[in-house]
Amino acid sequence: MRATVIYGAGDVRVETVPDPKLVEPTDVILRVVRSCICGSDLWPYADMAPSEHGRRIGHEFLGIVEETGADVTTVTKGDLVIAPFVYSDNTCRFCREGLQTSCVHGGFWGAKGVDGGQGEAVRVPQADGTLVKVPHTEDDGLLASLLTLSDVFPTGHHAATKARVTAGQNVTVIGDGAVGLSAVLAAKRLGAERIVLMGRHQARTDLGREFGATDVVAERGEEGIAKVRELTGGDGTHAVLECVGTKPAFEMAVGVVRAGGAVSRVGVPQYEEGPIGPALFRRNITVTGGVAPARHYIPELLPDVLEGKYQPGKVFDRTIGVEEIPGGYRAMADREALKVLIRP
Amino acid sequence: MRATVIYGAGDVRVETVPDPKLVEPTDVILRVVRSCICGSDLWPYADMAPSEHGRRIGHEFLGIVEETGADVTTVTKGDLVIAPFVYSDNTCRFCREGLQTSCVHGGFWGAKGVDGGQGEAVRVPQADGTLVKVPHTEDDGLLASLLTLSDVFPTGHHAATKARVTAGQNVTVIGDGAVGLSAVLAAKRLGAERIVLMGRHQARTDLGREFGATDVVAERGEEGIAKVRELTGGDGTHAVLECVGTKPAFEMAVGVVRAGGAVSRVGVPQYEEGPIGPALFRRNITVTGGVAPARHYIPELLPDVLEGKYQPGKVFDRTIGVEEIPGGYRAMADREALKVLIRP
Repeated sequence: MRATVIYGAGDVRVETVPDPKLVEPTDVILRVVRSCICGSDLWPYADMAPSEHGRRIGHEFLGIVEETGADVTTVTKGDLVIAPFVYSDNTCRFCREGLQTSCVHGGFWGAKGVDGGQGEAVRVPQADGTLVKVPHTEDDGLLASLLTLSDVFPTGHHAATKARVTAGQNVTVIGDGAVGLSAVLAAKRLGAERIVLMGRHQARTDLGREFGATDVVAERGEEGIAKVRELTGGDGTHAVLECVGTKPAFEMAVGVVRAGGAVSRVGVPQYEEGPIGPALFRRNITVTGGVAPARHYIPELLPDVLEGKYQPGKVFDRTIGVEEIPGGYRAMADREALKVLIRP
Repeated sequence: MRATVIYGAGDVRVETVPDPKLVEPTDVILRVVRSCICGSDLWPYADMAPSEHGRRIGHEFLGIVEETGADVTTVTKGDLVIAPFVYSDNTCRFCREGLQTSCVHGGFWGAKGVDGGQGEAVRVPQADGTLVKVPHTEDDGLLASLLTLSDVFPTGHHAATKARVTAGQNVTVIGDGAVGLSAVLAAKRLGAERIVLMGRHQARTDLGREFGATDVVAERGEEGIAKVRELTGGDGTHAVLECVGTKPAFEMAVGVVRAGGAVSRVGVPQYEEGPIGPALFRRNITVTGGVAPARHYIPELLPDVLEGKYQPGKVFDRTIGVEEIPGGYRAMADREALKVLIRP
């Protein structure tokens, strides 16, 4: 089969690799129907050290079950399923608490002999715990929205949930990438009244407004903080969803959060230490968030997506085939594309 | 009247100062019945730059109302009242959210012309919002426990509440000072099943056991982390109540918190930056806590104290008069006393 292998910064190749085979009785072989490129794939694309053998990549995909291991009971051949961006047994003590990203039998796609999602097929470990069956559809828009349940929409939802966004609240979302826009949609879905989106790419912030942003602030740093404070009577907002991951973004989040509020991070921090000293403490600011347990959130989010009530798939603004994946990375790295969908 | 003035590190004096007088119609004049020295008073005692005029100090006290301003309606002459460690109007938008420490008309004792609590009398601004009336009592033990509602017991409770300690949970408390021991008591009161107290002063950890600690870990750093993990099946605890404020204490907290759990800080951080990078993010750790809004918690905690169900006043292990306050500071700084009660 054809699959994507990353060999280092800027070096993504599509290659012929061995077809996946069942290894454990809990495995499933999936034929990938939709996949995509994640903002987090751009980190190794930016700075991965050159590697002789490379590694598989891609962690968001929908597929059709082709083969099932002997112990698999929840899905059968022909089912359309969502694969969350980590696999998990969904039964361990962490999974039972809704933290499938810390599953004791779980792991990441593209690591330790497990396939990546940016290819034609994938061996899925812990298939019963991992996969979520959905109704068959030929609707491209619906398939795109279902695909977002792998990662980007639950990640935005995680940001909002960990910040305890509730009806009537004011929320700031930092970042107009696909995660930031998903966080806007998630905040809207949870009933946020005012949603300030901090971003400067108009095509993206326009989609942000469509998703529910009531205000857009293009300014950054001190200027951006002053603008959000001005919009909120000087206080800032209870919830700040930090969807970038850089230190300046975190500092901006701390600057716009209301006393007693929460900064919820879903952009992987690109820093080891951050400002959590007396200034934050005096104002009772909570810092929360983390890697989203997408598997936990899919049952909650799926009905709204199936009904078409929310269309998180609108974050995809380009569709390519598997052979075009290297160009897809370039387009996202150059910010020509917001998020690239792959149709094998 | 006699009152305490701090002039610099190690320089605390008891002096004759003008008797307090009503300034605003919302003021009350209190005669102090019980006061005490806080661990946080030891920070300026350790490092305050020398000052010609000094400043008043002390922020935990019980008193009898002596005089009331024209607009005061909730307390009258002769009432016994608790003064939380900040004053607040209890009506502003922050107070209504239970965050009296961010009150727009609030402030700290001993600053901006307001008296400190370590003296014979205090002018209380925003008296209706600040003071909580309690039944008269001559019981020294009960008075000591009522005094803890000014600060130390609600501070421990804040740590536990912000970490969302619930019945049956495992909790680690870092620090065997008066705040740490109060956090043990608060966690016990909220139903924590296992409470691991990290501390090395046996008289204090013995009181910790009396308050509800099930395990005591004297080791620190990596060794302490390993010990707590061993006690908790390798996972650590959902809630970690960090009651010290140093960076090593925070690092230890991060080391013993379970994936998906919370580090709740109530020791004022003695650092500007802390480790909140990818390692914390991957495990979905929340960092929370802050300056406790004692006023918010008093109505919840008071009945249990009045009934004698909990006796947080046991943290006081020495009682002195106003003239002996400088020696009280020395005793606490030298760790000869856990917490010093002042009986004017």
